[in-house]
Amino acid sequence: MHTASASWPLRGIIPPMITPLLDNDTLDVTNLEKLIEYIIGGGVHGLFILGTTGELSSLSYSLRRELIHHTANLVNGRVPLLVGITDTALSESIQLAQTAAEGGAAAVVAAAPYYFNLSQVELIAYYQHLADQLPLPLLLYNMPSHTKIALEPATVHILAQHPNIIGVKDSSGNGVNFQHTQHLLRHQPEFTVLVGPDELTAEVVLLGAHGGINGGANLFPKLYVDMYEAATRRDVAALLPLQEQVLTVCSRLYRIGDTAASYIQGVKGALSLLGLCHNKLAWPLQPFSSKELASIQQYLAEIKVSV
Amino acid sequence: MHTASASWPLRGIIPPMITPLLDNDTLDVTNLEKLIEYIIGGGVHGLFILGTTGELSSLSYSLRRELIHHTANLVNGRVPLLVGITDTALSESIQLAQTAAEGGAAAVVAAAPYYFNLSQVELIAYYQHLADQLPLPLLLYNMPSHTKIALEPATVHILAQHPNIIGVKDSSGNGVNFQHTQHLLRHQPEFTVLVGPDELTAEVVLLGAHGGINGGANLFPKLYVDMYEAATRRDVAALLPLQEQVLTVCSRLYRIGDTAASYIQGVKGALSLLGLCHNKLAWPLQPFSSKELASIQQYLAEIKVSV
Amino acid sequence: MHTASASWPLRGIIPPMITPLLDNDTLDVTNLEKLIEYIIGGGVHGLFILGTTGELSSLSYSLRRELIHHTANLVNGRVPLLVGITDTALSESIQLAQTAAEGGAAAVVAAAPYYFNLSQVELIAYYQHLADQLPLPLLLYNMPSHTKIALEPATVHILAQHPNIIGVKDSSGNGVNFQHTQHLLRHQPEFTVLVGPDELTAEVVLLGAHGGINGGANLFPKLYVDMYEAATRRDVAALLPLQEQVLTVCSRLYRIGDTAASYIQGVKGALSLLGLCHNKLAWPLQPFSSKELASIQQYLAEIKVSV
Amino acid sequence: MHTASASWPLRGIIPPMITPLLDNDTLDVTNLEKLIEYIIGGGVHGLFILGTTGELSSLSYSLRRELIHHTANLVNGRVPLLVGITDTALSESIQLAQTAAEGGAAAVVAAAPYYFNLSQVELIAYYQHLADQLPLPLLLYNMPSHTKIALEPATVHILAQHPNIIGVKDSSGNGVNFQHTQHLLRHQPEFTVLVGPDELTAEVVLLGAHGGINGGANLFPKLYVDMYEAATRRDVAALLPLQEQVLTVCSRLYRIGDTAASYIQGVKGALSLLGLCHNKLAWPLQPFSSKELASIQQYLAEIKVSV
Repeated sequence: MHTASASWPLRGIIPPMITPLLDNDTLDVTNLEKLIEYIIGGGVHGLFILGTTGELSSLSYSLRRELIHHTANLVNGRVPLLVGITDTALSESIQLAQTAAEGGAAAVVAAAPYYFNLSQVELIAYYQHLADQLPLPLLLYNMPSHTKIALEPATVHILAQHPNIIGVKDSSGNGVNFQHTQHLLRHQPEFTVLVGPDELTAEVVLLGAHGGINGGANLFPKLYVDMYEAATRRDVAALLPLQEQVLTVCSRLYRIGDTAASYIQGVKGALSLLGLCHNKLAWPLQPFSSKELASIQQYLAEIKVSV
Repeated sequence: MHTASASWPLRGIIPPMITPLLDNDTLDVTNLEKLIEYIIGGGVHGLFILGTTGELSSLSYSLRRELIHHTANLVNGRVPLLVGITDTALSESIQLAQTAAEGGAAAVVAAAPYYFNLSQVELIAYYQHLADQLPLPLLLYNMPSHTKIALEPATVHILAQHPNIIGVKDSSGNGVNFQHTQHLLRHQPEFTVLVGPDELTAEVVLLGAHGGINGGANLFPKLYVDMYEAATRRDVAALLPLQEQVLTVCSRLYRIGDTAASYIQGVKGALSLLGLCHNKLAWPLQPFSSKELASIQQYLAEIKVSV
Repeated sequence: MHTASASWPLRGIIPPMITPLLDNDTLDVTNLEKLIEYIIGGGVHGLFILGTTGELSSLSYSLRRELIHHTANLVNGRVPLLVGITDTALSESIQLAQTAAEGGAAAVVAAAPYYFNLSQVELIAYYQHLADQLPLPLLLYNMPSHTKIALEPATVHILAQHPNIIGVKDSSGNGVNFQHTQHLLRHQPEFTVLVGPDELTAEVVLLGAHGGINGGANLFPKLYVDMYEAATRRDVAALLPLQEQVLTVCSRLYRIGDTAASYIQGVKGALSLLGLCHNKLAWPLQPFSSKELASIQQYLAEIKVSV
Repeated sequence: MHTASASWPLRGIIPPMITPLLDNDTLDVTNLEKLIEYIIGGGVHGLFILGTTGELSSLSYSLRRELIHHTANLVNGRVPLLVGITDTALSESIQLAQTAAEGGAAAVVAAAPYYFNLSQVELIAYYQHLADQLPLPLLLYNMPSHTKIALEPATVHILAQHPNIIGVKDSSGNGVNFQHTQHLLRHQPEFTVLVGPDELTAEVVLLGAHGGINGGANLFPKLYVDMYEAATRRDVAALLPLQEQVLTVCSRLYRIGDTAASYIQGVKGALSLLGLCHNKLAWPLQPFSSKELASIQQYLAEIKVSV
């Protein structure tokens, strides 16, 4: 097994991989391999497992560890591997990080602990304490829609002084705070700033962010890589049609039905139609029904024409 | 080891026990025994572990299991034991319930899974699926301040039709929904309705609720039992001074400092001053400092005079 | 025109009157008179106009003034009249209060200004400045579901020291804060504490609150007066069936359809069926359609049997 | 008096002007003239009064009308004038629009009515009804931080079909929804899409939005115009240092103190130091004290060097 030697800042498209499942608590190892090959084949710059798209909080710890082991072996150092260790219990986060380190991951990623309502001061203390004990560098993960706690720009700025905290993935969709975060970090060019929502990658990379952890790159890795590269070249004319295709993906596949998790249901449903996983989600989420899958089938056909 | 034979509805004061810790991930077994004897000695009608007051989400799974084993042995059937199995991963909740069943617990308690944003329809499906698989009866736990999802009265009413769902602990503080819940359940007298916030026990028991899972009963179990009994007798004249003492506890001990978890910090700080635990909290919460403990020391002295 | 000499604390059932309209901006003076006679005929202890139930924020200023004039003349001192002056513009609130004073109102009522996001410190400064300039005593109105700012118990306590602030109407439904507010004010027995939601009047009056500003008292004033009186007598046996009737009103009439304003739509729809107003709401709210009115018609028939 | 003939879409920098006050309810006509000359002198493409920055909700109606009259006369058709008519009462909004039309305004701007909690369906009905009756074209104003109701992209898209609704100002800071809104409107190039937060103008104009209604353009109009023009030329190299200066303005002047209105307090405080208004805010907001003004003084000096 090889370890990808990551250099900082991390750059590019790093898909937050879905977790292929056979049932609520059984990993689908066959499709895991197919999916990893498909994604890496699209030219992505890294892989992130156990994020929100990976249904981090719904998986048992034994399954999480199994996923880390298998993914590390399958990736085998071809791209940097990021592993989510988000948890409400500090000791479980640290154990997951140790598993990630044994597998050769490049870094771990942690959203705020999400049960108690913490102040920014408490968040800072928590992250510093966590980072002190981790065997790998830590990427902060700002995900207030799910954790219900935002990492304020000033908080990220303070935490960026910790030697083991090497970046932030901002999935808030809050464009104002994203720009403030980048502004505060403008004198730390090695600190990685990545954006979560697919819709924002074009504009923030144009203005200097390092890349995107975008769910749609599970489905269309090459499209996202092309968009990223046009943005890094500041080629707005080439970027606009690529960004429009990405927005078509988002508006077609992420907003079906009326559940808050329609994004995850949509990505997993679409991947199942592409033969890259089963249409299984872990509780408490439920997969799309055949009716919604029929819509996805149609949208996929439309999108493929344009992509 | 004996099992308390619980009868339904559960009635009375069932303290949500704090978890005595030696450090972030080590149970304080010595104080666990002292604390259990102290609480049961106050005449309470049950004991609830691994609730929010017990820092459920911050504890590793091995510590949770250890706590269940020790508590079950120490309680030894003297009062019904309720065990919190709240988790974001269904399979972990079920495993905790099995440990609880082996220990002779009377029921398990589950708040909504708290990462994804679920609709009421999704919550209903989740709880029904969970209850189907549990080896013990299930008490719903409405805790929107922490889970950020409320169990609506109509949801509780629907779930109350499930044969393995036997009650609800409502910690929302939402008096309107509490009354609606009771109203919807008025033809199911065996369905347990308990209230969380100490401040509400007097009024809701007066109007027919079955009791309270009140944090202050860790500290002053007899006061809460007396209040409960005055309310069940509908003796408002006797109830009012007891309710005032409870409000003094809440306003003195739960609202020190400016953290959202000041309630837990206050209860644990006060118990440490009574010699019933160490002043240790699990991450991400931090214990009160000596300055705040000094305030608690003074308030405890004042309260003891009146109690 | 006579002025009711109010004594403090205000006690009893003080209905928050709906505003009878002919269209978006025309007062229905004929039904205003019928409605006032109907409500006062039920034995209520006061009348409150221009609250949320009165669609305060949707009415033009000229209509608000017209309503104050007509209501004051029609009530003619038989019961204390409370007038809502809630506004985002201080100067408009003061002008409304002057109109209220000219009409002989007993007090004015103001929710927090509801556009800017104010801290408790800013709220305190605002209310003190407002109360300094008012020609009538001021009742605070805690209505966070609509203003999106809560008046914390400590804020009410501080404001209660102002000589011109004589009480609070708490419509938050937050039972914990209600008890804390009462506890903080226990040494100011002349400070009026009234509750908004119909569902809570029974329990808070039992424990010492002074009464309720309950929307259902537009429809069934005598029922609410009876409930209030049973609670003040601490006669729980008599209170429970009355409270159950009130909960039937609330669950039948306030929760039809899926709009957030279903309570107002329900009360006004039901009153229109009783011939006490037209089924007209001011924009941005819209009246229930004939389908929902048919449900109300049926529920009214059922409720009348039991009431 | 001349009227600027606006062409659609509106493009460029359209500052949301502060309202110069002598006291809570008195317009400062002298500084109004100075401020308008200063802003127009910076090359802006329009002027917007009675937005949030203009303290719309805090001003009496007579003052709002006075402001419209004076501003219309002073602008005198040199740039298109937009007038905020946001109100909770439909009839007051329409009256303000008539005043605006008489003054020769190019369009009116309305945020969602902000007391009742409206669904998207109710919002659509409201805006359609409003637009039907307005004497001027209507620009939607998405301001959920203050109205607590967001205009969803699909809602904007539906409303964009109304012949009298000609654009949207999105002040949500929600980058994801901004991109979705633009995507949905990609076949209506004449529909104006403007962004509120200063921090976002660079990136959204790069990707095709029409301009910004940015508060900092009260202070540094030329800087914002230069930034806008670099973005329309897609000259990222020129844009980046201008964007950095804008971010310096935002981070220095908008985030002093801990109030939610620090942005307005900061802009007005800074303008008072530039001699363009008094440091007076309308209730319920309060101006910065001399201590905070001293910080602003220092920041202004720093910024001026770089600008």
